[in-house]
Amino acid sequence: MTKGLMEFEVGEQLEMFLLVKTCTKGIASNGKPFLSLVLQDRSGDIEAKLWDTSDQDEQTYKAETVVKVNGDVQNYRGRLQLRIRQIRPANPQDNVQVSDFVETAPLSQDEMMSQITQYIFEMKNPNLQRITRHLLKKYNKGFLVYPAATKNHHEFVSGLAYHVVSMLNLAKAIANLYPSLDKDLLYSGIILHDLGKVMELSGPISTTYTVEGNLLGHITIMVNEIGKAAEELDIHGEEVMVLQHLVLSHHGKLEWGSAKTPMIKEAEILHYIDNVDAKMNMLDRALRHVKPGEFSERIFALENRSFYKPTFHN
Amino acid sequence: MTKGLMEFEVGEQLEMFLLVKTCTKGIASNGKPFLSLVLQDRSGDIEAKLWDTSDQDEQTYKAETVVKVNGDVQNYRGRLQLRIRQIRPANPQDNVQVSDFVETAPLSQDEMMSQITQYIFEMKNPNLQRITRHLLKKYNKGFLVYPAATKNHHEFVSGLAYHVVSMLNLAKAIANLYPSLDKDLLYSGIILHDLGKVMELSGPISTTYTVEGNLLGHITIMVNEIGKAAEELDIHGEEVMVLQHLVLSHHGKLEWGSAKTPMIKEAEILHYIDNVDAKMNMLDRALRHVKPGEFSERIFALENRSFYKPTFHN
Amino acid sequence: MTKGLMEFEVGEQLEMFLLVKTCTKGIASNGKPFLSLVLQDRSGDIEAKLWDTSDQDEQTYKAETVVKVNGDVQNYRGRLQLRIRQIRPANPQDNVQVSDFVETAPLSQDEMMSQITQYIFEMKNPNLQRITRHLLKKYNKGFLVYPAATKNHHEFVSGLAYHVVSMLNLAKAIANLYPSLDKDLLYSGIILHDLGKVMELSGPISTTYTVEGNLLGHITIMVNEIGKAAEELDIHGEEVMVLQHLVLSHHGKLEWGSAKTPMIKEAEILHYIDNVDAKMNMLDRALRHVKPGEFSERIFALENRSFYKPTFHN
Amino acid sequence: MTKGLMEFEVGEQLEMFLLVKTCTKGIASNGKPFLSLVLQDRSGDIEAKLWDTSDQDEQTYKAETVVKVNGDVQNYRGRLQLRIRQIRPANPQDNVQVSDFVETAPLSQDEMMSQITQYIFEMKNPNLQRITRHLLKKYNKGFLVYPAATKNHHEFVSGLAYHVVSMLNLAKAIANLYPSLDKDLLYSGIILHDLGKVMELSGPISTTYTVEGNLLGHITIMVNEIGKAAEELDIHGEEVMVLQHLVLSHHGKLEWGSAKTPMIKEAEILHYIDNVDAKMNMLDRALRHVKPGEFSERIFALENRSFYKPTFHN
Amino acid sequence: MTKGLMEFEVGEQLEMFLLVKTCTKGIASNGKPFLSLVLQDRSGDIEAKLWDTSDQDEQTYKAETVVKVNGDVQNYRGRLQLRIRQIRPANPQDNVQVSDFVETAPLSQDEMMSQITQYIFEMKNPNLQRITRHLLKKYNKGFLVYPAATKNHHEFVSGLAYHVVSMLNLAKAIANLYPSLDKDLLYSGIILHDLGKVMELSGPISTTYTVEGNLLGHITIMVNEIGKAAEELDIHGEEVMVLQHLVLSHHGKLEWGSAKTPMIKEAEILHYIDNVDAKMNMLDRALRHVKPGEFSERIFALENRSFYKPTFHN
Amino acid sequence: MTKGLMEFEVGEQLEMFLLVKTCTKGIASNGKPFLSLVLQDRSGDIEAKLWDTSDQDEQTYKAETVVKVNGDVQNYRGRLQLRIRQIRPANPQDNVQVSDFVETAPLSQDEMMSQITQYIFEMKNPNLQRITRHLLKKYNKGFLVYPAATKNHHEFVSGLAYHVVSMLNLAKAIANLYPSLDKDLLYSGIILHDLGKVMELSGPISTTYTVEGNLLGHITIMVNEIGKAAEELDIHGEEVMVLQHLVLSHHGKLEWGSAKTPMIKEAEILHYIDNVDAKMNMLDRALRHVKPGEFSERIFALENRSFYKPTFHN
Repeated sequence: MTKGLMEFEVGEQLEMFLLVKTCTKGIASNGKPFLSLVLQDRSGDIEAKLWDTSDQDEQTYKAETVVKVNGDVQNYRGRLQLRIRQIRPANPQDNVQVSDFVETAPLSQDEMMSQITQYIFEMKNPNLQRITRHLLKKYNKGFLVYPAATKNHHEFVSGLAYHVVSMLNLAKAIANLYPSLDKDLLYSGIILHDLGKVMELSGPISTTYTVEGNLLGHITIMVNEIGKAAEELDIHGEEVMVLQHLVLSHHGKLEWGSAKTPMIKEAEILHYIDNVDAKMNMLDRALRHVKPGEFSERIFALENRSFYKPTFHN
Repeated sequence: MTKGLMEFEVGEQLEMFLLVKTCTKGIASNGKPFLSLVLQDRSGDIEAKLWDTSDQDEQTYKAETVVKVNGDVQNYRGRLQLRIRQIRPANPQDNVQVSDFVETAPLSQDEMMSQITQYIFEMKNPNLQRITRHLLKKYNKGFLVYPAATKNHHEFVSGLAYHVVSMLNLAKAIANLYPSLDKDLLYSGIILHDLGKVMELSGPISTTYTVEGNLLGHITIMVNEIGKAAEELDIHGEEVMVLQHLVLSHHGKLEWGSAKTPMIKEAEILHYIDNVDAKMNMLDRALRHVKPGEFSERIFALENRSFYKPTFHN
Repeated sequence: MTKGLMEFEVGEQLEMFLLVKTCTKGIASNGKPFLSLVLQDRSGDIEAKLWDTSDQDEQTYKAETVVKVNGDVQNYRGRLQLRIRQIRPANPQDNVQVSDFVETAPLSQDEMMSQITQYIFEMKNPNLQRITRHLLKKYNKGFLVYPAATKNHHEFVSGLAYHVVSMLNLAKAIANLYPSLDKDLLYSGIILHDLGKVMELSGPISTTYTVEGNLLGHITIMVNEIGKAAEELDIHGEEVMVLQHLVLSHHGKLEWGSAKTPMIKEAEILHYIDNVDAKMNMLDRALRHVKPGEFSERIFALENRSFYKPTFHN
Repeated sequence: MTKGLMEFEVGEQLEMFLLVKTCTKGIASNGKPFLSLVLQDRSGDIEAKLWDTSDQDEQTYKAETVVKVNGDVQNYRGRLQLRIRQIRPANPQDNVQVSDFVETAPLSQDEMMSQITQYIFEMKNPNLQRITRHLLKKYNKGFLVYPAATKNHHEFVSGLAYHVVSMLNLAKAIANLYPSLDKDLLYSGIILHDLGKVMELSGPISTTYTVEGNLLGHITIMVNEIGKAAEELDIHGEEVMVLQHLVLSHHGKLEWGSAKTPMIKEAEILHYIDNVDAKMNMLDRALRHVKPGEFSERIFALENRSFYKPTFHN
Repeated sequence: MTKGLMEFEVGEQLEMFLLVKTCTKGIASNGKPFLSLVLQDRSGDIEAKLWDTSDQDEQTYKAETVVKVNGDVQNYRGRLQLRIRQIRPANPQDNVQVSDFVETAPLSQDEMMSQITQYIFEMKNPNLQRITRHLLKKYNKGFLVYPAATKNHHEFVSGLAYHVVSMLNLAKAIANLYPSLDKDLLYSGIILHDLGKVMELSGPISTTYTVEGNLLGHITIMVNEIGKAAEELDIHGEEVMVLQHLVLSHHGKLEWGSAKTPMIKEAEILHYIDNVDAKMNMLDRALRHVKPGEFSERIFALENRSFYKPTFHN
Repeated sequence: MTKGLMEFEVGEQLEMFLLVKTCTKGIASNGKPFLSLVLQDRSGDIEAKLWDTSDQDEQTYKAETVVKVNGDVQNYRGRLQLRIRQIRPANPQDNVQVSDFVETAPLSQDEMMSQITQYIFEMKNPNLQRITRHLLKKYNKGFLVYPAATKNHHEFVSGLAYHVVSMLNLAKAIANLYPSLDKDLLYSGIILHDLGKVMELSGPISTTYTVEGNLLGHITIMVNEIGKAAEELDIHGEEVMVLQHLVLSHHGKLEWGSAKTPMIKEAEILHYIDNVDAKMNMLDRALRHVKPGEFSERIFALENRSFYKPTFHN
C-alpha cells in the first residue's frame, strides 16, 4: 500500500485493497439493479459503480468491508471515478484490516494520553483535578478512539482526543498571555466538554447518533456525569457547579444548543478555543487539495463559504 | 382588614396595615433624601412617597416590613398614589404577618397535594410513578410554597403547585380526546418539569435567582435529579431517559433555553399544555381590572400585546 | 379489497385495484420514455415503474385513474417498490370508484354535522349563533368534503370538518377548566376559522390552490364573508368585528400570515387549539408505522424534527 | 401671528397664541404638582413648565386648548424651553381656532381633490374606475382631512390625501417609463390603499387608533369595503379580487402586516411607490432644520438612522 | 434566422443555428457517456441530449460554440425538449457569430452612451461631474458590454449600461417631483454605483466572478477608484466622500453587503431607484411568456414569489 | 494623588484634583438650574451634583476641565455619590494636566512601538512588510494615542496600540500551534485592521465619530489607504488585494459591517483573535471590582450578559 489512492491520476490503472465506505443500490433504466460504491483508503475516497448486481452483491460489498479492486481511474465531470475491472472481498489471508484504511489522528493514543495526563498533573485545584481524572479514567477507552463529530471537523478515529489535545495547547498559550484566566478550570472544562460524545455517538467508524445522543445530547449527558462523579468522590465545592456550567454553555448560544450562555470568563474563552481549533481543522482539510489561486469547495459548517488560497502561498 | 386596598377610590382616606413591597431611596432637588414605597395587600399595590427621610427610615421601611399607615388616596397621572399622613412599622401586638398581605394560589396546599397525589396514584407505569413520587417527596416543602416564576405568570405564593395542578387537569382532558397519548408520561413530566425551580429561585417572596439558578437553570438541575433518583431507586428502564427528555425539552425551542427540541409526542404536548396554562393565567390577571370596551396594558411575555375585553363580555 | 396495500411484505405477489396518485414521465438512458407511478389505497401508497411507455400510456395512467395491477413487492433502498407484471385501467364492470381508494375522516359526514349542530345549538349569544349557522349552511357542501390543507395535517377527504369537530371538543374541555373563556365565541371562531378553505382550495382530491386562494387567502375570504353575512342578517353588534378578529388572527403571528396578532383572549386560545389538534394529527400519522425504539421520518411542518417512539409504548 | 414659534431665539421674549399639544402632570419634590406643557404653532413646538398648579389648571390647560402666553425663550440641554410669565386660555373674542395651529398639507383640499378626480377620469377600465369613484365618494369627508398615520410620515391634517396625490404623480412618472404597467390598476390601488385609515384612526387631530382599527386594521377594513362596493355596483370581473390583492399586500411583507405578499406586478410597484413617498416625506421633515455639515436626529421609522446634510447643499 | 427558437411548437421540426449555452456530461446506466446541451438563440433556450458520445464530442460541443442542428421539438414533463437528428459545429463559411445568439440590451451602445453623456453634461457641480466623466471614460469599454449581474436582472450583454440609463431616467422623474433632491449627486451615484462590476465580473458572456470580485467586491473596488480619481484630478471637496458613501451604501442594508447603511437622502433614494429598475426588469422578463390567468415560475430574487397575470391584461 | 478616587469609602471626606468627564444641566423643581458632574481620576469615576448654579458655572465646569474638589463620599442607591463642599477649577500653579486623570494603556508608547517594530522586522514577505511599515509610519502619531473604540473595549488612551500588541502576541502563539498559518499576513492584517480609526474617531479623549467615520467607516478608509500605499510603493502583487480583504472582512459577518465575509484562512483567524482580545479586555474590566460569589453588571457588548466570579477565585 505504498501509493495512496489520491496519488493516482486519470488514465492510470490501479490494483489495491480499499475499504467500502458506503454502498447504495440503484435501479438502472433497463430495470436491473446496480451498486454505487464509495471506496477509500487513508488518503481519500473515490466513487465506483458495479452494474447488473445481484442481491448477493449488495450483501458482499456493504459498508465497512475491505475489498481488493482492479480498475481504471477516469474523469467524470471534473471528479475522479473508478471504472471497476475486477473486485472481490478481502479474505483472512490478505492480512488487511479496516483500521488500515481509515483516517486517524496524527498523534498516537499514547502520545495524546501522555500530554493530557501532564495537563491534569499540573492542576493545583484538587477538586477540579480529581473530577477530571475520575471521568477521563471512566471513559478512557472511548475517549481515545471516538471522533469529535460525525462530520464537519475532527471526524476521524481518535478525533475527540486529538481535538482536546490541540485545545489544551491553545488554552495554555492564551492563559499565558491573559494571566487572569484560571488554567485549572480551563483545562478541566476542555477535557470534559465533549466527553459525553462517547455516549452520544455510536463508535469510531460509520458514526451515527445513539438514541440517548438524540434525546439528551452529549452536553446534558456529561453535566449529569460530573454531578455523579462529585457525589462518588464526595466533592462539594462550587467547582462542581462551575465545571458543569462550562460544559453546559460551551456551544456559546442558546440557539446552538447551549442551555445557558457563558456566564463565567473561562466558559466564554473555552467556547472560543473550541471554535478556533474546530475551524483550523476544517480549513486545513478543505484547503489541503486546493491549488494556489483557487477556491475550496463550499464548507457547510463555515456558513457555506469558499476559501481562497493566495498565489503567494505554496 | 375587611376592605381591600384596591377598593379605595380617589379622595378617600384609609387607615390599614400594608406590606412594604419595595423601598427605593431618592434625593430631592433640595438635596434631601426621600423614600418611594410600594405598599401592598392581597388585592394589589399602590405607590407612596415619604419626604425628608433619615438613614434610619431607610432601615425601618425596607422591603417585607409590615406597616400601619394612614393617608389619602390621590390621582397621579391616571394612577392611584397614596399621600401618607402617618406611618409606623407593625409590632407584635398588632398580630399581623407578612403572609396576610401576599397573593396566594386560590387552592389550599392540602387541596393541591391531594389532587396531585391522586394523579400519581392513577399511574400504571411503576418506573415513572416511583421516580415522580420520590422527587416530589424530596422537594415537597418548597414545591408547595414557591411561585412558578419571578414574573409573568403564577408569580405568587404556591404558584408552582397551582400551575402543576392546572396543567394536570388540562392534560387529562386532552389525553381523553387523543387516546394515543401516554397519560403516565404526561403526568410525570408535568409534575417534574418546573420542580427545579425550588433550587433555581430564592424562595416564595421577593423572589430572585440563586447562583445555581443562574449558572445551571431549573431544567438542568431537574434532569440531574431524575438521574440521581433513578440510581437511588435502582431503576434502569428507558423511562428515565425519556422523562429527562421531557423536562429537557419543555421550553420547546433551543432559543428559549431547551437544550433539545421535543422529539417525543408527549414532550411536544407538554410544551403546549405549559403554554396554555401560563397564558390563561397571564390573560386572566391582565384583564381582571379592565372594563368591557377597553384594552389591557401591554403584556411583555405575550410579545407586548394589549388585549381587548369585548363589550358583550361582562 | 380485504387486504390493504400496506399489509403486503417483500416477496409477496399482489393483484388488486389501486388509484394512480401521481404519474411522472422519465426518459431512460436508451432514449425511451418510462412512467413513475405512485399507486395508493386507503392504507398507504407504493412506487412502481412502467418501462418503454408510449404517449398513449401517459394518458391512460394519469393521476386519479383507478387501475388493476398484478405485481411483486420488492425492497428498494429500504422502501417498498412494486414490480409490475400486468396493469390495466379499471372499467365500469369493475365497479370501483376513486373514493374507495382515498383516505377519509374516521367519522361520517352525518356524525360530524350532528356534533357541530349540537355545539351551535348550545350557543347563547344569538348574534354569534346566527352568523355561524348562516355561513355553515351556505358552504355546507364543501365544508363536509374538503381537506383542511393540501399537506401537513388533515390532508384527506372531510379533513376540514374533522379538524373542526376535534377542535370543538378540545375547546369544550379547555373552557370547562378556564371558565372565564366565552364558549360561544370560541365555538363560533373554530367553526368559521378555516371555512374560507372551500374557496381557497380546488376540491377534496388532488387539491391545489385557486387563484382567489393565492391572491386573497382563506382568512381574508372568510373575514369578508362574515361581514356580508352580518349585513344580510342585519346584525350590528360588536360580535361581528370580534369574530372577524378571531378569524383574522388565528395564525397567531404576522409572519405566519395573520394580518393582526390575537388581541382577544379567545383569539389567543383558538390559535393554540388549532395548533394542538393539527400537531396531534401530524404526530399520530407520522408515528403510525414507526416501531418502538425507532424514529419517524423528519416532519417538515414540525420544524423538520424526527420523533421517537419509546420502547415502553406498544 | 406673523412670526412663527420656531423663529424665536434664546433670550427673546414672546407673546402669542399657541395650541396645547400635550399636558402632563408631575409632582415636584416639595410635594406640589406642576404641569409640563408642549405648546405648538404650525412652525413647530416647545416645552414649557407651570409650577404649583391646581386641579383646576390641569383642566384649563388640557390638550387641544388654545392659550395666550407671554414668556422667555431659554436654552435647556441644547433644546429650547419656554419660561412662562403669563398664560391664559383663549376666549371667543380672541378669534383664534385650533386649525390655525396645526400643520396641514401644502395643497388645499380642492386642489388635491381636483388632481385625484383627473386621475380617475383618465382610467379606461370601467370596473376599476367605478369602484374607486364609489369608495372615494363614500369616504370623501374623512379622506380630505385625516392624516396618513399617527406618526412617522404625513402625520398632519390632510396628510392622507396629500400622500395619495404625491403617489399618483410618482406612479404616472414611473408608468411612463415602464409601459407594461397597468396605470388604471396602479391609480386605483393608490387611491384606495390607505383609505381604510378613516376608520382605523380617530380623526385629524390628536389621532389615536379606534377599536376597529386595532382589531381589524385599515387593510382588512378596505378589502371588505371593496367587496361590498363591487356587490352594490354589481361588478363581477376579476378586477375586484385583483384590487383587493393590491390593498391586501401593500405593506409588502407578512411581518409588516400584509396578509399576502405582492403577487401582481402593480402590487409590487405600489409597495415601492408608497415607500418612496413616505421616506421622502420623513427625510424632508427630518432635515428641515439641520444645517449643512450636521446630522439629523435619529429617525425611528428609518431603522433609527441619522441623516447627514452635505456641506455643499444649502 | 427569421423564426426564433421560442416560436416552434411541439411536433414541429427545426433546422437552424444555435449557440451552446451549457454542456454537461452524464453517464447512462449502460455505462456510456452522453451530453446534456442547452441550446439558445435570442428568443430563449431549449434542452437537448446527445447519446453515446465520445470525449471528442465533449470538446466539440462545449459552451459558447455555435452549432447547426436539425431536430424535433418534443414535450417532456411540460417543458420543451429537442430531439436531435443531426448536429455539427458551425464553420467560417456559415458566417454566424456568438453575438447573433445572445440577448442584448434593447438600446444600442451609441444610444445609451449618448443619453448618459447628456446627463453628465447637465450636472452643475464640477467636482461630481469631473469624477464621473473621468471614471466612465476609464472603464468605458467594459461598461458598454458587461451585464449588470450574473443572474436575476439585466443579465445580458450591455445590461449594465442599460440598467444605468433606466435608472437615470427614473431619477430624473423622481427628482422633478421631489425638488429637494440633488440631481447631480443622484446622477453621479447612479452612473458609478455598479461600475465596479467591470472588475468584479469576468466579461459579457458566460459571466463568472473574478478573484478580485470575490475578495473585494464591486462596491469596495469602485469606492477605491473614486478616491484615486479624486487624487488624480486634484479634487478635495466633500463631494468625494459623499459620492463614496452613495456607492458604499447602495445595497441598503448591512446584511446585503453595504458596509454602511444610507445616511444621505440621495443615498437612500438611489437604493430605491436601483430596486425598482431591477424588479421591473425581473418582472417583465418573468411575465413575458405567461398567459393571462396564469402564474409565472417562482422568482428566486423576489423572495421566491410567483406572479399572476390578470385576465384583463392582454 | 497617592490615594485613588475608588479607594475612598462611604463616610470619608476627600480633597483632591479630579477631571470633569461629563457635565449635564438640570432644572430643579424650584425652577433653578443645577449641574450633574461626573468626576474621574485613573481609578474610576463618581457622580456629584452642584445646586443653584449660574450660566457661568456651566462654562467653568464643562467636560475635560480639571477641578479641585472637597466633599463627602455618600451612598446613593448602592452607588457612591460625592456631596461637594467646595469646588474650583485648577489653575496653572496647581501643576496638573488632563493626562494625569485619564486611563491609559498599561504599556508605554515606546514599549508598544518597540514590540510592533519587532513583529514587522520578522516578516519575510517584502510586499506585506513594506505596506505595513509605510502605513504605520504615516499614521504613527494617532496610532499611539487613540483608543480602539469609543466604548465597550480598549476605550482608553493608547487603547488602539495596546489592542494591536495583544493581538500580535496572541497571533504568534496561535500560529506556532497551527503552522499552516501565514504569520506575515496575520501580523500585517492585525497591525492595519483598526488603523482607520485614527480617521474614524475624533481623538484620544471624549472620543466621538468624525463625519468621515460615520459615512465611510474605518474599514473602508483603511482599504483605500492600502490601495494608495501600494501605488505609492509601486507594489503590484496579490498581497495588496489579500491584505485589503483581511481588513475588509475582519468584522466577520455582513451584519456586523464586513462588506465581505472572510474567505482566506488568515482572515477568519484574524477575526477570532480580534474577538478574543476584545472580550478578555471587557471581561477583565467588568470583573475588576466584582467580589467572589457575585455577578458583574450586564455587559452590553457581550449580549447583555452578567458574569459570575467563582468563590474559589481570589
